[in-house]
Amino acid sequence: MNLCVFGAGRIGSIHTDNVALNPDVSIRYVVDTFPETAKKLADKYGAKVVSTEEALADPELHGVIIASSTNTHADLIEASARAGKAIFCEKPIDLDIKRVRECLETVEQAGVICCIGFNRRSDPQFAAIKEAIKNGSIGELEMLSLTSRDPSPPPVEYIKVSGGLFRDMMIHDLDVARWLLDEEPVEVFATASCLVDPEIGKAGDVDSALVTLKTASGKLCQISCSRRAAYGYDQRVEAHGSKGMAQITNQLESNLVLSGDNGVVAQKPQHFFLERYEAAYRIELNNFVDCINGKAQPVANTHDGVQSIVLADAALASLETGKAVIL
Amino acid sequence: MNLCVFGAGRIGSIHTDNVALNPDVSIRYVVDTFPETAKKLADKYGAKVVSTEEALADPELHGVIIASSTNTHADLIEASARAGKAIFCEKPIDLDIKRVRECLETVEQAGVICCIGFNRRSDPQFAAIKEAIKNGSIGELEMLSLTSRDPSPPPVEYIKVSGGLFRDMMIHDLDVARWLLDEEPVEVFATASCLVDPEIGKAGDVDSALVTLKTASGKLCQISCSRRAAYGYDQRVEAHGSKGMAQITNQLESNLVLSGDNGVVAQKPQHFFLERYEAAYRIELNNFVDCINGKAQPVANTHDGVQSIVLADAALASLETGKAVIL
Amino acid sequence: MNLCVFGAGRIGSIHTDNVALNPDVSIRYVVDTFPETAKKLADKYGAKVVSTEEALADPELHGVIIASSTNTHADLIEASARAGKAIFCEKPIDLDIKRVRECLETVEQAGVICCIGFNRRSDPQFAAIKEAIKNGSIGELEMLSLTSRDPSPPPVEYIKVSGGLFRDMMIHDLDVARWLLDEEPVEVFATASCLVDPEIGKAGDVDSALVTLKTASGKLCQISCSRRAAYGYDQRVEAHGSKGMAQITNQLESNLVLSGDNGVVAQKPQHFFLERYEAAYRIELNNFVDCINGKAQPVANTHDGVQSIVLADAALASLETGKAVIL
Amino acid sequence: MNLCVFGAGRIGSIHTDNVALNPDVSIRYVVDTFPETAKKLADKYGAKVVSTEEALADPELHGVIIASSTNTHADLIEASARAGKAIFCEKPIDLDIKRVRECLETVEQAGVICCIGFNRRSDPQFAAIKEAIKNGSIGELEMLSLTSRDPSPPPVEYIKVSGGLFRDMMIHDLDVARWLLDEEPVEVFATASCLVDPEIGKAGDVDSALVTLKTASGKLCQISCSRRAAYGYDQRVEAHGSKGMAQITNQLESNLVLSGDNGVVAQKPQHFFLERYEAAYRIELNNFVDCINGKAQPVANTHDGVQSIVLADAALASLETGKAVIL
Repeated sequence: MNLCVFGAGRIGSIHTDNVALNPDVSIRYVVDTFPETAKKLADKYGAKVVSTEEALADPELHGVIIASSTNTHADLIEASARAGKAIFCEKPIDLDIKRVRECLETVEQAGVICCIGFNRRSDPQFAAIKEAIKNGSIGELEMLSLTSRDPSPPPVEYIKVSGGLFRDMMIHDLDVARWLLDEEPVEVFATASCLVDPEIGKAGDVDSALVTLKTASGKLCQISCSRRAAYGYDQRVEAHGSKGMAQITNQLESNLVLSGDNGVVAQKPQHFFLERYEAAYRIELNNFVDCINGKAQPVANTHDGVQSIVLADAALASLETGKAVIL
Repeated sequence: MNLCVFGAGRIGSIHTDNVALNPDVSIRYVVDTFPETAKKLADKYGAKVVSTEEALADPELHGVIIASSTNTHADLIEASARAGKAIFCEKPIDLDIKRVRECLETVEQAGVICCIGFNRRSDPQFAAIKEAIKNGSIGELEMLSLTSRDPSPPPVEYIKVSGGLFRDMMIHDLDVARWLLDEEPVEVFATASCLVDPEIGKAGDVDSALVTLKTASGKLCQISCSRRAAYGYDQRVEAHGSKGMAQITNQLESNLVLSGDNGVVAQKPQHFFLERYEAAYRIELNNFVDCINGKAQPVANTHDGVQSIVLADAALASLETGKAVIL
Repeated sequence: MNLCVFGAGRIGSIHTDNVALNPDVSIRYVVDTFPETAKKLADKYGAKVVSTEEALADPELHGVIIASSTNTHADLIEASARAGKAIFCEKPIDLDIKRVRECLETVEQAGVICCIGFNRRSDPQFAAIKEAIKNGSIGELEMLSLTSRDPSPPPVEYIKVSGGLFRDMMIHDLDVARWLLDEEPVEVFATASCLVDPEIGKAGDVDSALVTLKTASGKLCQISCSRRAAYGYDQRVEAHGSKGMAQITNQLESNLVLSGDNGVVAQKPQHFFLERYEAAYRIELNNFVDCINGKAQPVANTHDGVQSIVLADAALASLETGKAVIL
Repeated sequence: MNLCVFGAGRIGSIHTDNVALNPDVSIRYVVDTFPETAKKLADKYGAKVVSTEEALADPELHGVIIASSTNTHADLIEASARAGKAIFCEKPIDLDIKRVRECLETVEQAGVICCIGFNRRSDPQFAAIKEAIKNGSIGELEMLSLTSRDPSPPPVEYIKVSGGLFRDMMIHDLDVARWLLDEEPVEVFATASCLVDPEIGKAGDVDSALVTLKTASGKLCQISCSRRAAYGYDQRVEAHGSKGMAQITNQLESNLVLSGDNGVVAQKPQHFFLERYEAAYRIELNNFVDCINGKAQPVANTHDGVQSIVLADAALASLETGKAVIL
């Protein structure tokens, strides 16, 4: 199976390393606006550095991995879809919901596979709680609580082009909420503050936010997000059902516990997404390969890509109006 | 110090047993609409069964413990205040905020001590997280998360006279939020469902609710309440600050852990409030005695009693309008 | 029920406060070599300060609590037994096994109740693991592991008269081992070092010790003792059976957990025995009162007092010879 | 770097998969008494199936991985050493200490690298506690406690050729003890029983054992081993020092926690060594490659291989005599 990688930066390299572990996979092309970055990754796997057009013109290319900057995602998805290639695209598809919907249409018309990189869905811990909910371990699901805190805020320059906390960061949690609730939210309320870095506020964004979701059947979900957590990346889920509660907690740096004068000290959570979702990145690329081989369905598809943006936009609208947005 | 107990039921007996542990305290009177109930408790402590008027007329009576039904609280507070007695009253003062404010005025004019029975404030675990926030262990407080779930719903007959989930149950959490935030909320949003027992819905109440609070300085708080938790009483707090997170978790029935075929099994949380807040009940009555002796201030005072009802009413209003209520 | 307390020091006061909570109990006499110490405790409960002889001569005295120094225990037990009084005696009965056996004989001849103050047996956590073993939660018991560490060593002056680590400190764990194994050990091996305080070594004692026990049926038990634990009093039990493992861990100062730069920090274990066994002290005195009232059997009896000394002596003998001692 | 694998069974395949992840490594030969087993693994990596002699005669072969049955280890080590190849050998070198010493001599004379597969030393959790002890987190190390329990006993046929519990299973723990104590034990005591499977007893072995070690400086160590743990593979370490305690606990199947009617249920420990030491197997082979490249020293060397057998033999001797064996 021949693949092309768009974007040879940090996350593009991780996806390439992971997918290349598969003995059936050959990295044929690398495309990047920086030729040196492209060459370095291409050399590692004996791939060629080419243009987007050259890559997509190859009838023996089976799929593409889109890990370039967010503003290129939609164009690359469309071009790849038209060329009939299977697509793995990092989230989000686009910050503009109209553009996202256009993309979706093109993908549907082309009938190609399109996996969206919502890494939580492939993480073993998130998979464990998904399975627990699904298999009835907690009875009928009633309430969900998601905690999502980054260790520290990104540079303000990034914030400005990111789409803001709801579309850039909480989009993961909104997707997790939909996935675990197994039902679309119909009511969205958001409140937020700028408590971490006043520069984020000046850039028109918030850094601390609470979102409340409600589904048609009355299931409730609360999401708590912050750009700061002195103790590391905080990624927890709690699900309440008629028969009990399921929780997943943070993965710690090690399970060493030191007891001394200052208390009983466990290690910090793994620092950030690269460490925390290391396994998830491997598994989501396996899913992509399995989809191409006809053995699996996308863990997160284009519809999921659309709906997460719909929810993020609703949260933003609620924040501006002080009202719950009804979908 | 001579005390009178109004209401000799379950919670009245607990308060009496606790306050009687104090060697300086003498239980002089017990007042209850059921003479037999009154007599049983009175006999245990060599007290007399009398009417409200007789008790309050005694110039040697120093204080009263009001543990009768909620609809009698306001009248007893006023009568006791006018008689110049120190007051310990179970929460809530009244379900009607106007009546609560009237009471407050009478108490203020009388200048008597008036402690409100918000048991969480006297609980050693809640005190530990209050202290951690206060002493800067987590830097500047930013976000708060309260989880409050009863093991099972009360009878619908109780629900009907209780004032509903917000005024009866979540009022504790709203008070805890104010106490830990150390700042009044200015924005309240609520969403809720009836997921546990349809009879509760028929009675016009909800059994599952999420509330979001925001203070003037931008601090955020989320409260999750449910009338059901298959694993027992769930009472947790999580506070996020600029330097880290503080959490208190449930007290378990014992710290026995059994590892076997079915996993690593810890014991359930203590079943309900009588077990969970056993120490808190002892400590809050000590506070009352210390207040009478001039050695302490009320842990929760009449102002706290008012504000918790204000927040509960705001949550109800938000639930009805789908908008955040601005205070 | 009229009781006399021998020894009005710290532990004597605790026992007195606890037993006096029982409405049926009247503290009639306090005996102590220091008249002031005796008077202070006696005044608190309206008791008389008398001599041992006077106290035991009172036909209306039902029982005695022996909390005086270890070297007086055996004489007081015998005198009380001959006077027909029910006895609660702090461990150990005596440091000399011959003297212990003599005592036992006198008590048996007198046919009086004699409870030995092995506090672990009355502790709710230890009771929980005892019950788990008994009710088959872990199948057939196979191996036991006891950890027992004091926060810091006692003064060397105390060490010199204490009987040493095995008879003074580990005696509790040896008793717990017998109690939980529910079978007498037949093989005892000990190894030990002086690692905490060289003065303890100079006084002829050790401060760090490992003991291994084996019962006739082949059950194995290991005990780890140390006079030092920087994190507080360490009192843990682990029991392995054919169907799983049961564990009890330390009771922490509170369940507050602080996550920050330096990790995820839980509170230290409760500092020492007075805090850790607060509930146990209350419960063991209730057991004594229940024994006098004919409602219960001693949680730990004279036979237990004897056997714990037998094991401590065997451990000492093993330490000297480098061989397992066969009982 | 060209490598040969001796033994293409389960553990041989794992080592081969792990070492082959290294882009510099080429699997040149596979040797196995079963041609089909050899061919399967060889085909996966484009290697040749050859005889031991053919493999070792290749001057371009840099190293060998010995994962064949225990009774072939010593011969293969010697042959490989004489051929000047770097060696990675699964533990144990041999069950007979004389044979082990012979091997060591040959390896030393040949001056080749020889890594012994004590997987715990390469495990991230064990590495974390090793580092904590080394960097003074718990002050001066005083006492060590190792728990090692297999989920279920191997077939009796395996027991018969395994060398018994001490040389087959506890050898890992004896090596960990030496490694963490950073000092040779001078006193060894063992006691043991057959509690899990009477067939093991009939085969002359035990299935439950306690070993106590003491070093020259007085450090103490206890090891608890069993062939059974209903909850899965139990691999824990606890180290006590002058300033506190360090612990590592089991890795669980996931961090999902389910709270319900039956308690607060965490997942079981990972089932057995293949899951638990997955990372360790990868890391120990990286160490081997790094040793060949001159970038590292063996994590466990031949001396460690010898000393672990010395301790296992001492434990056996102690078990037979009932005395501590002095080394």
